[in-house]
Amino acid sequence: MVLTAFAIAKEIGGIVDTQLNDVVITSASKLEEGNGNSLGFFSNPKYEQSLYETQCGAVIVPMGFKVQKPVSTLLIEHPNPYFAFCTILTNHFSPNLHRTGIESNHIHPSVDLGDSVHVAATAYIEEGAVLGDHSIVYPGVYLGRNVKIGKHCIIYPNVVIYSDCILGDHCIVQAGSVIGGDGFGFAPVNGKYIKIPQIGNVVIEDWVEIGSNCSIDRATMGSTVIKTGTKLDNLVQIAHNVEVGEHTVLAAQTGIAGSTKVGGYSQFGGQVGVAGHLTIAPHTSVGGQGGITGNITESHQKLTGTPATDVRTYLKSVAATRKIPELLKAIEDLQSEIENIKSSK
Amino acid sequence: MVLTAFAIAKEIGGIVDTQLNDVVITSASKLEEGNGNSLGFFSNPKYEQSLYETQCGAVIVPMGFKVQKPVSTLLIEHPNPYFAFCTILTNHFSPNLHRTGIESNHIHPSVDLGDSVHVAATAYIEEGAVLGDHSIVYPGVYLGRNVKIGKHCIIYPNVVIYSDCILGDHCIVQAGSVIGGDGFGFAPVNGKYIKIPQIGNVVIEDWVEIGSNCSIDRATMGSTVIKTGTKLDNLVQIAHNVEVGEHTVLAAQTGIAGSTKVGGYSQFGGQVGVAGHLTIAPHTSVGGQGGITGNITESHQKLTGTPATDVRTYLKSVAATRKIPELLKAIEDLQSEIENIKSSK
Amino acid sequence: MVLTAFAIAKEIGGIVDTQLNDVVITSASKLEEGNGNSLGFFSNPKYEQSLYETQCGAVIVPMGFKVQKPVSTLLIEHPNPYFAFCTILTNHFSPNLHRTGIESNHIHPSVDLGDSVHVAATAYIEEGAVLGDHSIVYPGVYLGRNVKIGKHCIIYPNVVIYSDCILGDHCIVQAGSVIGGDGFGFAPVNGKYIKIPQIGNVVIEDWVEIGSNCSIDRATMGSTVIKTGTKLDNLVQIAHNVEVGEHTVLAAQTGIAGSTKVGGYSQFGGQVGVAGHLTIAPHTSVGGQGGITGNITESHQKLTGTPATDVRTYLKSVAATRKIPELLKAIEDLQSEIENIKSSK
Repeated sequence: MVLTAFAIAKEIGGIVDTQLNDVVITSASKLEEGNGNSLGFFSNPKYEQSLYETQCGAVIVPMGFKVQKPVSTLLIEHPNPYFAFCTILTNHFSPNLHRTGIESNHIHPSVDLGDSVHVAATAYIEEGAVLGDHSIVYPGVYLGRNVKIGKHCIIYPNVVIYSDCILGDHCIVQAGSVIGGDGFGFAPVNGKYIKIPQIGNVVIEDWVEIGSNCSIDRATMGSTVIKTGTKLDNLVQIAHNVEVGEHTVLAAQTGIAGSTKVGGYSQFGGQVGVAGHLTIAPHTSVGGQGGITGNITESHQKLTGTPATDVRTYLKSVAATRKIPELLKAIEDLQSEIENIKSSK
Repeated sequence: MVLTAFAIAKEIGGIVDTQLNDVVITSASKLEEGNGNSLGFFSNPKYEQSLYETQCGAVIVPMGFKVQKPVSTLLIEHPNPYFAFCTILTNHFSPNLHRTGIESNHIHPSVDLGDSVHVAATAYIEEGAVLGDHSIVYPGVYLGRNVKIGKHCIIYPNVVIYSDCILGDHCIVQAGSVIGGDGFGFAPVNGKYIKIPQIGNVVIEDWVEIGSNCSIDRATMGSTVIKTGTKLDNLVQIAHNVEVGEHTVLAAQTGIAGSTKVGGYSQFGGQVGVAGHLTIAPHTSVGGQGGITGNITESHQKLTGTPATDVRTYLKSVAATRKIPELLKAIEDLQSEIENIKSSK
Repeated sequence: MVLTAFAIAKEIGGIVDTQLNDVVITSASKLEEGNGNSLGFFSNPKYEQSLYETQCGAVIVPMGFKVQKPVSTLLIEHPNPYFAFCTILTNHFSPNLHRTGIESNHIHPSVDLGDSVHVAATAYIEEGAVLGDHSIVYPGVYLGRNVKIGKHCIIYPNVVIYSDCILGDHCIVQAGSVIGGDGFGFAPVNGKYIKIPQIGNVVIEDWVEIGSNCSIDRATMGSTVIKTGTKLDNLVQIAHNVEVGEHTVLAAQTGIAGSTKVGGYSQFGGQVGVAGHLTIAPHTSVGGQGGITGNITESHQKLTGTPATDVRTYLKSVAATRKIPELLKAIEDLQSEIENIKSSK
């Protein structure tokens, strides 16, 4: 089926002048990089000049937008051009839409496969697992015993999900991530470490996205939990029994130590570290490389540094440190002044 | 075979009143989460109330423990309830016990497979590799040429072990870890980098556990070594020619740069970084996000911060930094005092 | 074919006394660890004693080198012994040279396989992919739709390369790395996050090496770029739309946030973090755990700390912080002096 600018306008509920010639759309791009069959979008007035120079065949623009110069592209008006553009990308240009069928020979007969699922060759699914309708399992994925995956999930290549872990609907796990590995639990006995069996699981709620090469450990007992709508970037470490609240974003290489609870609607920068057994209030923002070493009881704080403090205190403290050489000088001056005073008496 | 509370008491050498009714045990849980067929344990007096409220069918309690209130669970007395509980978990509730057989078609005919080993489908084992008795290789694992794995090891899905690396007995490697990748060695030649071949290997001794998505590089020449009983958390980086001593724990996202030797019985928090070519004394403890930039010659130190110093110095320095605004004020006061003195003369 | 010391001398253009007996070479090693069939090298005068004690059958030494004591090994003279030694390692002792043939059944018929390529069993290659001459694909690798790999590349086990990504010639990707995963892009809408489709790709130029378990995200639109000759260590995070310049080295666990441009010929230590949307001048050096929070406009700087400053300022600031307790004491002394002066009037 051929996609055109008029069809796109209809799909997103946008406005287009149908007296102009329709345009076939085969790709999406930035305004600077498109060709006559590309769809672009324009929303930030700062880049208006790009609109007048674009080679894109059609561009989604804000509702009621008036051009200041002639354009050689078909305009589609929409109240939120970027959102509409993303909708078209998701619906028509996602590379994941086209996978179908069960290729793998390594699916235990007891596995419950939903409608329209795809399981690629070299994926391996153990006894008792469940895969919800429309979910996609790429090559090299391992789903352990009794793993439950909801509907409309995408599990990218070489993801490993250990036994008994549960994912909700509309979850995405990028390649190489490991969900449900043993928590880091060892009891010291006479200078050696005895492994504490980790018999809990990981529960991931709906609309969660996990980046690539993340490690989310199973609970010692009970569950490690990632709540609805939360997004993890790449190489993130979530230790056993951690709970990450809803609609939270954790940037790359962040690590949360065992049993800590991160409140919902929080935003952590890259390489943030949080110590174990803490409670972090909802709506907490932490700057990159910040280290949280105590409970955060008040919500809506913006923290940074190690140990993390609020951003203003941190900036003052950085500025203050740089003033120490001045202080040294000031003290020396005072000392000679006093010597002068004493000797002049 | 049905597991019961009386059988568990016998297995752990515990004491149970066999005049009471025996209970079938099908799971293990926290006291708060169990049902009539769950085994729990109680050892911390702080949580004694949970014992009186538990739904668990049987609970392991300290030897000689006297109840203060009636309980509706069968008590098994043991000198170390948690240790006994872990033993039962390991022996009966580990999901790994039940794997058997050689499923893979990708095992070189020269490979030496021990007794009772398991190699899952999609695992790939190269020429000359050795897999010790009772070891388990999950799907998607790659064992390179001449890799030697000892007895009773568990190699979780999608682990990669490059050629010539050696693991001892009773080792566990969580999913996605890479052992024996090329060390990061390049010789600068006219502003470009020439790869220095990494022809050493990695030697991992007995009872070592490696977390998920770790990277342990092979030596340039010789061996990168992880000694007996040491445990690595997830996403840990061990560079070429590093030596990590025995019975050491490295928490998640820690990185040890090339040729550094970490002394035995050490404990590193998460996200710790250690520079290359250093020697760290045994029994060194480093707080999360600490950065070690020089040799640590004295053992049993507790270090933190970057550059890492002992914890007390670090805390003083943090407190001091916060006092700088006060210092500024004090100096200004002194300056005006002196002005006053001078003008009053 | 048997490799001998005379053949090695010829291959590297070195000088050997062919009146002595030739030696069969079957391995390469450090001087301290070799046997009669090992090749070693000697270049650092500090280790000259090792030369006199070595068991190696042959050793590459600097051109014109004169022994001070008798040696029991055959000497091969060369202007750059280490470089010559590396050449022999690469040509004769690389474990990767011997792989041939197409083992995998999971290669789409449209895939364009070059001459002398190797694709191991359990590798999976999607429609439209291209694999250049002499490239090697290990087991468990996933190459997405339209991925293009140049000539003489080595893709180690369980690497995942998403659709449309491009690698140049002579690239090496160590095991478990993920190239082209979705960038971390979400639009906040009413407190929730809507996924922004990531329709760009990753472009990796020639002679690039990527360590193990790295994550290099595809661009939102356009390309994430790693330029010629650049080397990434393990567990490195490269976010969407980042550009890393040519001949740059990024040590392990470093993370570069979205849209940042790192100038060529730069050197970053381990665990460095760089914020998003920055421009870092060429020839920038950053110490381990450094955090870059602003543009670096001047090239050839050596930075360290968070926020990163030049090394001298950083060291002064660390030293200064440690002096604060002294400052407090000095101020107290001044205060009492002034009290004395005032009371003595």
